[in-house]
Amino acid sequence: MASRPSQQASLEWLSREYHDLNGSHIDVLENPPTALEFARIVHISRPVLIRGFKIPASTSKWSNDYLINKMGSLPVSVAVTPNGRADAVTPGLDGKLFFAEPAVETMTMKFLLDNLSDDDAHAETFYLQSQNGNVYSSRFFQGQDDPSEFAPLRQDIPSDVKWCTEALDRAPEAVNLWIGNGKSVSSIHSDPFENIYHVVRGTKYFTLLPPMDGFWLDERLYPHATYVRNGKGGDLTLQPSSDTPSVRWASISDHLSRRLPQEAHPIHLSVGVGETLYLPPGWFHEVRQAECGITIALNWWYDTCMQGHSWVLLSYLRAIKDVPLGNAEDDSDETMY
Amino acid sequence: MASRPSQQASLEWLSREYHDLNGSHIDVLENPPTALEFARIVHISRPVLIRGFKIPASTSKWSNDYLINKMGSLPVSVAVTPNGRADAVTPGLDGKLFFAEPAVETMTMKFLLDNLSDDDAHAETFYLQSQNGNVYSSRFFQGQDDPSEFAPLRQDIPSDVKWCTEALDRAPEAVNLWIGNGKSVSSIHSDPFENIYHVVRGTKYFTLLPPMDGFWLDERLYPHATYVRNGKGGDLTLQPSSDTPSVRWASISDHLSRRLPQEAHPIHLSVGVGETLYLPPGWFHEVRQAECGITIALNWWYDTCMQGHSWVLLSYLRAIKDVPLGNAEDDSDETMY
Ligand SMILES: O=C(O)CCC(=O)C(=O)O
Ligand SMILES: O=C(O)CCC(=O)C(=O)O
Repeated sequence: MASRPSQQASLEWLSREYHDLNGSHIDVLENPPTALEFARIVHISRPVLIRGFKIPASTSKWSNDYLINKMGSLPVSVAVTPNGRADAVTPGLDGKLFFAEPAVETMTMKFLLDNLSDDDAHAETFYLQSQNGNVYSSRFFQGQDDPSEFAPLRQDIPSDVKWCTEALDRAPEAVNLWIGNGKSVSSIHSDPFENIYHVVRGTKYFTLLPPMDGFWLDERLYPHATYVRNGKGGDLTLQPSSDTPSVRWASISDHLSRRLPQEAHPIHLSVGVGETLYLPPGWFHEVRQAECGITIALNWWYDTCMQGHSWVLLSYLRAIKDVPLGNAEDDSDETMY
Repeated sequence: MASRPSQQASLEWLSREYHDLNGSHIDVLENPPTALEFARIVHISRPVLIRGFKIPASTSKWSNDYLINKMGSLPVSVAVTPNGRADAVTPGLDGKLFFAEPAVETMTMKFLLDNLSDDDAHAETFYLQSQNGNVYSSRFFQGQDDPSEFAPLRQDIPSDVKWCTEALDRAPEAVNLWIGNGKSVSSIHSDPFENIYHVVRGTKYFTLLPPMDGFWLDERLYPHATYVRNGKGGDLTLQPSSDTPSVRWASISDHLSRRLPQEAHPIHLSVGVGETLYLPPGWFHEVRQAECGITIALNWWYDTCMQGHSWVLLSYLRAIKDVPLGNAEDDSDETMY
């Protein structure tokens, strides 16, 4: 869309100006906001850490025993990878880089929690991260039948966050349950959602970048692949997809903190038991979990308002930038850096 | 900041995308919003026409007699121009273009209203538009002494708009009274304020352009000048200022509707008696008044939130664009068009 030196100048200008005016501070609220307070926060579109948002799902109630008991023999869909990097840029057998989706396998809650409690460094990594509205999907909010693998846990999980629903004047788009351990990392990316992210057990470590810093991540296009198991009990291998389009993804998502340039302004934030992160649309986030034990979280995704300036700005930040191929032989001329 | 073809491409992209997503529709509310509803409106940052916002100053109460009676012999500062173009790009005696500020003269309310009711096409144009917080200034909201020429009218003019104050969580920065007639036009410009604009008598005709369409106005830098009266009873002549910096102003503000290109999307809106316009920061507006009779309006300016994306975006839209001189001999190479 635009010639390169100018792209770069525009993007650097926006990043610098944003940081000069906003700094890297994250507000902490000791109690959930009112709908009006939250509407003001949404307008500012900066992450906020919220304490005191209480729901029935709690660290004391949601013991392994409780979850196993509630879920019984029901099958649960779990992401399985050799390395804990689901939805991440990963080399295939030929050394070529792919955007790798995990294998998805079903198991009981007991099997999942046993695996996550196990210290065996050689074991495959399990992460319950189905994130398709696995607790409540948009069907639920449209009054339709909405089967969920986690129906027995719904009584502990409110279908919406009242102050958010009221502030945005809409129901959630998806409510998700996340169960994993320190072996899984969600690589840095952004979503087009207002995200209310609540930690039930353990700790999540977020590395956040404002939308205007996203270009430092050097997004590129990676061919799509999926982990596939070679027969029952076999290994997982990465299988290139034949007709899934390439995926735009950060090329410096590994060792993020080391590889980000000085000019970027990552914000490091841990979200502990009972704490809630408001993560605005377009904010890039890498998510790690406590080294020890199991981390459980819930999140409510709400569609973003597409009226007004914000959406156009987020689109512009994507459109203004050339996105080179991730596997170009020699892309020194193709990139901006 | 950026090379030209790319500036132009970026600005056109933003303008097109904004229009595709937002259209040119203006919402009309039959009643004032709650604070929460207004917070959502502020987030969307599009103008809204509001009916039913009632204040003591009304078309029936504020007759000429009432105003003259209340104000008595108190002096009122009025903008005086030969042509009704205060704060506009105007040729000086040598044909050079200036940003012209009006002469400011004091008179009684009776003298002002008599002049505005008079049809004499040759008379100078008066416009009460002091817009420095002429009813309440920021001093008032800081609890300081805040003298106003319109102190006797304050009882009819609430110092703030409750639903706006509560939504924004701040007091106004300035409250202004405007009294004029069809001979005055406010040329197109934008302000860095949230603006609640209420018509008490007559009609105001707004031509609105979203911030992302502002570059079609071809802003340029014009030297500053002020109308000065040549002795008591003499003519007004435009006197170039010696040490006021040049002013960035739309170069196509005359015959705006004719001169805007097809790609711009002006919105025409009349705001009649008892109606209130919410005008978000950065929106360009030209304001005309009913041909016949006197038009009276009040407006509440609130500072804009400088946190978050909106302010950075508005700054970017200004910064991305070269601003050529308004009087360049031959500027065909200097401009983007
Ligand atoms: O918890 C995680 O691993 C990732 C969460 C995430 O990406 C999200 O909520 O958008
Ligand atoms: O009423 C007018 O003439 C101009 C109003 C205006 O520019 C404003 O309220 O910002």
